[in-house]
Amino acid sequence: MTQLPDVVTDPALPAAVTIWEVGPRDGLQNEPVPVPTEVKVELIGRLVAAGLRTVEATSFVRPEWVPQLADAEQVVAALEPGGSADDPVRYPVLVPNARGLDRALALGVRDVAVFASATETFSRRNLNRSLAEADAMFAPIVARARAEGLGVRGYLSMCFGDPWEGRVPVEQVVRAGRRLLELGCDALSLGDTIGVGTPGHVGALLTAFAADGVPASSIGVHFHDTYGQALANTLTALRHGVTTVDSSAGGLGGCPYAKSATGNLATEDLVWMLDGLGIRTGVDLGALVATSTWLASRLGRPSPSRVVRALAGGGEEPS
Amino acid sequence: MTQLPDVVTDPALPAAVTIWEVGPRDGLQNEPVPVPTEVKVELIGRLVAAGLRTVEATSFVRPEWVPQLADAEQVVAALEPGGSADDPVRYPVLVPNARGLDRALALGVRDVAVFASATETFSRRNLNRSLAEADAMFAPIVARARAEGLGVRGYLSMCFGDPWEGRVPVEQVVRAGRRLLELGCDALSLGDTIGVGTPGHVGALLTAFAADGVPASSIGVHFHDTYGQALANTLTALRHGVTTVDSSAGGLGGCPYAKSATGNLATEDLVWMLDGLGIRTGVDLGALVATSTWLASRLGRPSPSRVVRALAGGGEEPS
Repeated sequence: MTQLPDVVTDPALPAAVTIWEVGPRDGLQNEPVPVPTEVKVELIGRLVAAGLRTVEATSFVRPEWVPQLADAEQVVAALEPGGSADDPVRYPVLVPNARGLDRALALGVRDVAVFASATETFSRRNLNRSLAEADAMFAPIVARARAEGLGVRGYLSMCFGDPWEGRVPVEQVVRAGRRLLELGCDALSLGDTIGVGTPGHVGALLTAFAADGVPASSIGVHFHDTYGQALANTLTALRHGVTTVDSSAGGLGGCPYAKSATGNLATEDLVWMLDGLGIRTGVDLGALVATSTWLASRLGRPSPSRVVRALAGGGEEPS
Repeated sequence: MTQLPDVVTDPALPAAVTIWEVGPRDGLQNEPVPVPTEVKVELIGRLVAAGLRTVEATSFVRPEWVPQLADAEQVVAALEPGGSADDPVRYPVLVPNARGLDRALALGVRDVAVFASATETFSRRNLNRSLAEADAMFAPIVARARAEGLGVRGYLSMCFGDPWEGRVPVEQVVRAGRRLLELGCDALSLGDTIGVGTPGHVGALLTAFAADGVPASSIGVHFHDTYGQALANTLTALRHGVTTVDSSAGGLGGCPYAKSATGNLATEDLVWMLDGLGIRTGVDLGALVATSTWLASRLGRPSPSRVVRALAGGGEEPS
């Protein structure tokens, strides 16, 4: 039987949280060894079976940029509808450009995401475009996706610190986020791409968005655990009314050259906290840990998730 | 140059925090391989040089129980006075029984700690005494230490969950804590020994202590990162006015049989958060990371601290 946390609620926190699972896309894209398509499809199926209702499946990026995701078509084509008519499973995919959207639409994808930057330098380095040029590229993509009736999420990276620019002013992030919403995105994901943020900064950023009239209901948070701050930052975001949290099963997404370095907040560590707070997620922690333990054995390295290590042990020395 | 977090303060949090460094005692006592006395003394010296002002040095436990700490006399005898006359360094030691206090007093120790349990089962298993019998054992120890002018901290373990009893009622913990204060302890350390607690539970426990008239200034918190909750729980404790936080340099204290499993909250991960919040600790993060990297190389295994791994890299593959 899986160990579970004791439940003590906090009335200042939301009653339910949507976990936006990014492992199959944001996690696997960093894996140096090719992961077979059938493993990806099984991973997604297991995540849905564990109760996750939003599973970002892949990215329609150019295969030469991210060879690991070159099988995006095959993965999406293999996805099973899940959940129920009232509560269907969503499989958003990243569309980095117009060609990516074409590929997604051809497969009948219902939810897409674009990936923008809060800083000029990262926009130029990651997208090879200035912020203004990136906006110009995204505008027709978002417009077309909305015209086709798709949900469109706008990822905003480098919302706290940037390796080249240092601390990113909250006003700059709010401006960039507002621009994505004006383009037609129905929701934002605020990313701490390098994991440097701390709770005061999270609170200040969310307060600034609220002051600008952006409701917490349209904001997701996306923390990386590089400096161990992801869960404390998430707790702070919940106190500010955020109810969508990005995480990655087993903490997938670590930097490949340091075999236990940490990337995204681990979904299991998040679920432990939310379960303990009595916040509904629909996720079965035991099934999720079993999924991440299975994936660790396929990837040949342990999960960096504390919960997975504590509950599965075997994650430490995968067979 | 060490990467540092950007500073954004939060007026609801304290301006300064005392870090009660437990690595040399709580961390090393779990190390399966004997650590030479000179390494322990160098570790403590480096921690003080990094700015820590309370470093729990060892335990005067019976050597046959914890062979790793059999050199308690030699370690204490080698400690250098540190800090300044206004802000001296404190080197508390654990005294599990009257004989331990004798040994500490013989060396001129100024601060001691006793180790009690919030649950009957753990008291019987760890101390071989019922709660009432443990109280009876501690009473003369605490009284004598206070009569000698020593500071006396009361550790209370299993304050959230207990492996045998499950969830521990907050009223039971408050009762046990109050009893330690009545015996003469001047401060408490509330331990989540198995790391299962979540923020709602932390808030409820601290609210119950406050309702019982125990000021937050006499409470320290001691979280383990077994399920990744330690920093979120610490943040919650700070919101409840707690200003003393236990942690272990490099996250020392992991379970020895799982080489990267996590034990105490890592001091570096704590300092990252506190630095980012502009909360004073006096600690130089770079010097602390260098210390933990050095110790990891001596212990032959990487630090589980996220910050140490991110900043030192070499912690992953110690030489």
